[in-house]
Amino acid sequence: MADKKKQGAGLKSGPPRVVSGMRPTGSLHIGHLLGALRGWLALLDDADCYFFIADWHALTTGYEKTDDIAASGRDMLVDWLAAGLDPEKAVLFRQSAVKEHAELHLLLSMIVPTPWLIRNPTIKEQARELGLIQSDDEAEMNKINYGLLGYPILQSADVLIYRAQRVPVGIDQVPHLELMREVARRFNRLYGQVLPEPQALLTESPKIPGTDGRKMGKSYGNAVFLSDSAEEVDKKLSRMMTDPRRARRTDPGDPADCPAFNLHKVYCTDDEIAAVTEGCKTAGIGCLDCKKIMIKHVNADLDPIRERRAEIASRPDYLSDVLEHGNKRATEVAAATMADVRAAIGLE
Amino acid sequence: MADKKKQGAGLKSGPPRVVSGMRPTGSLHIGHLLGALRGWLALLDDADCYFFIADWHALTTGYEKTDDIAASGRDMLVDWLAAGLDPEKAVLFRQSAVKEHAELHLLLSMIVPTPWLIRNPTIKEQARELGLIQSDDEAEMNKINYGLLGYPILQSADVLIYRAQRVPVGIDQVPHLELMREVARRFNRLYGQVLPEPQALLTESPKIPGTDGRKMGKSYGNAVFLSDSAEEVDKKLSRMMTDPRRARRTDPGDPADCPAFNLHKVYCTDDEIAAVTEGCKTAGIGCLDCKKIMIKHVNADLDPIRERRAEIASRPDYLSDVLEHGNKRATEVAAATMADVRAAIGLE
Repeated sequence: MADKKKQGAGLKSGPPRVVSGMRPTGSLHIGHLLGALRGWLALLDDADCYFFIADWHALTTGYEKTDDIAASGRDMLVDWLAAGLDPEKAVLFRQSAVKEHAELHLLLSMIVPTPWLIRNPTIKEQARELGLIQSDDEAEMNKINYGLLGYPILQSADVLIYRAQRVPVGIDQVPHLELMREVARRFNRLYGQVLPEPQALLTESPKIPGTDGRKMGKSYGNAVFLSDSAEEVDKKLSRMMTDPRRARRTDPGDPADCPAFNLHKVYCTDDEIAAVTEGCKTAGIGCLDCKKIMIKHVNADLDPIRERRAEIASRPDYLSDVLEHGNKRATEVAAATMADVRAAIGLE
Repeated sequence: MADKKKQGAGLKSGPPRVVSGMRPTGSLHIGHLLGALRGWLALLDDADCYFFIADWHALTTGYEKTDDIAASGRDMLVDWLAAGLDPEKAVLFRQSAVKEHAELHLLLSMIVPTPWLIRNPTIKEQARELGLIQSDDEAEMNKINYGLLGYPILQSADVLIYRAQRVPVGIDQVPHLELMREVARRFNRLYGQVLPEPQALLTESPKIPGTDGRKMGKSYGNAVFLSDSAEEVDKKLSRMMTDPRRARRTDPGDPADCPAFNLHKVYCTDDEIAAVTEGCKTAGIGCLDCKKIMIKHVNADLDPIRERRAEIASRPDYLSDVLEHGNKRATEVAAATMADVRAAIGLE
């Protein structure tokens, strides 16, 4: 066991450090915007933010189809910037550009018992959704790829390497955060106090169904993208599914059963919501007119994003400048942590 | 799946490239010398050699006791150099100084099914020897640490990152080499021909028992170290266990049952071996006199090693210079491979 002297937990006074990443999914839709992305934007002024393109994570399940990873990451970065992520206020970087994540992942892998991974409910659910395992039986988890089994360790490395105090997570990600904390505790117990345990920053995402009422997703063809023109948004949302009871204009309905109404709840004023609720229940308003009220707000929300997108497109070197700057800043912090990690373990 | 265009397998004409590593075990004993180390020395003139201190591998089983890893690595390097490993003829480096090993390990982990690791007989045996698992049952393998389960992937990265053609292995390591080849094939099939499949260079190690007749090992207190003085060697080997039937000077024995005779077989001339065999079987020679014949050769073998050790000790910066030089050369090659690897996967 290495010398247990306190090595400084790297905790700073000042704004809390926050780390979060997204897999490179290409163009983002309004589900991403209203969920994770707006959550990130809300943190910009009050936290020391590190947001990354999780391109290595994309390989855990997508290793057979990788030719669009780099382009998807760039498209996603454009959407981040267009949505208002300011690269001066947040460190925006690409995970695979900061090799220290891989080094810490390797070192943490040595101290993590495999059962911690096998019993992880989130990864089990994911493996089942992907058809990689057939049952909840722990022996089934043996069948998945080693990297997929270990991705919570990579996530731990992603966060711990910046000594983040806070990690924005949805409620379904809490088991991963617990694992991160467990990994940090185990490291600190073995080698000394180097990696602070991050706390959850529970984020709530409004439920945004796709235009067909199912979960919004690129692969379902039901998504409204940040990159859609105002006309495209109008066209997609005008056709969005509503309460099926309103088959005819004169049939009354209930907003509680209307997929489109989820967007009203996010975008419309209280007065508008009261009015369309009344109109729906009494058949006083048609579905198209009702949606037009909401669509106006959606497009008003997306307009400045479209403007910034056009501006970004006019500066061909901007994206690589942003990444180069962010990768460099992230690497500096990660390298400093790794120097402490190596010294604590006794590798150097 | 990334573009399958041939990216050049990196195969060079000229001497074959060979990669091998040793865990940092501290001072080496004559078992190491006569086994792995002389095998390496024999390759120096005919191969492009990369030999490394496998300090990350030391963590797979030794993560709880790490404070001597760095010192053990340096002590081992001194023995390598003293034994004649020429840093101009071979690239001598520290695994953890070449971060690219961790990156390739991470990328390979994504494509390796966990069953490939679980069914590995060598790791299973090792886990059983360490008391980490109790039976051959595959479910038992779930209990070991994630990094130990995956160390054959780290080994694969260690070798494949130098596009080695040959890997010196003992017969018990052949399953690991097969796994490396399987990993390389899978990578090449998914992403294009980037990582050549290495071939085994089967090495035979003479059986060198310790002074008490058990396997020679530092922890057994039965080892003759390269760093032992001539007097220490004489003292240790004079007391070395012989055929127990020769309790009295006049009792005849059989070299086949004499632990010390294993050293005669390595060190003595054919005439000497014939003479002591005859002397043993007829009680014509006492065990101590018999061993003195062998000890003379052992010390003659170790004398130039002692001289080089003294020379190395007189140059305080020499070790760090050697490592800096070797780490740099290894990193150049590893970085070039990783550029091809990333491009093939489509990460950049």
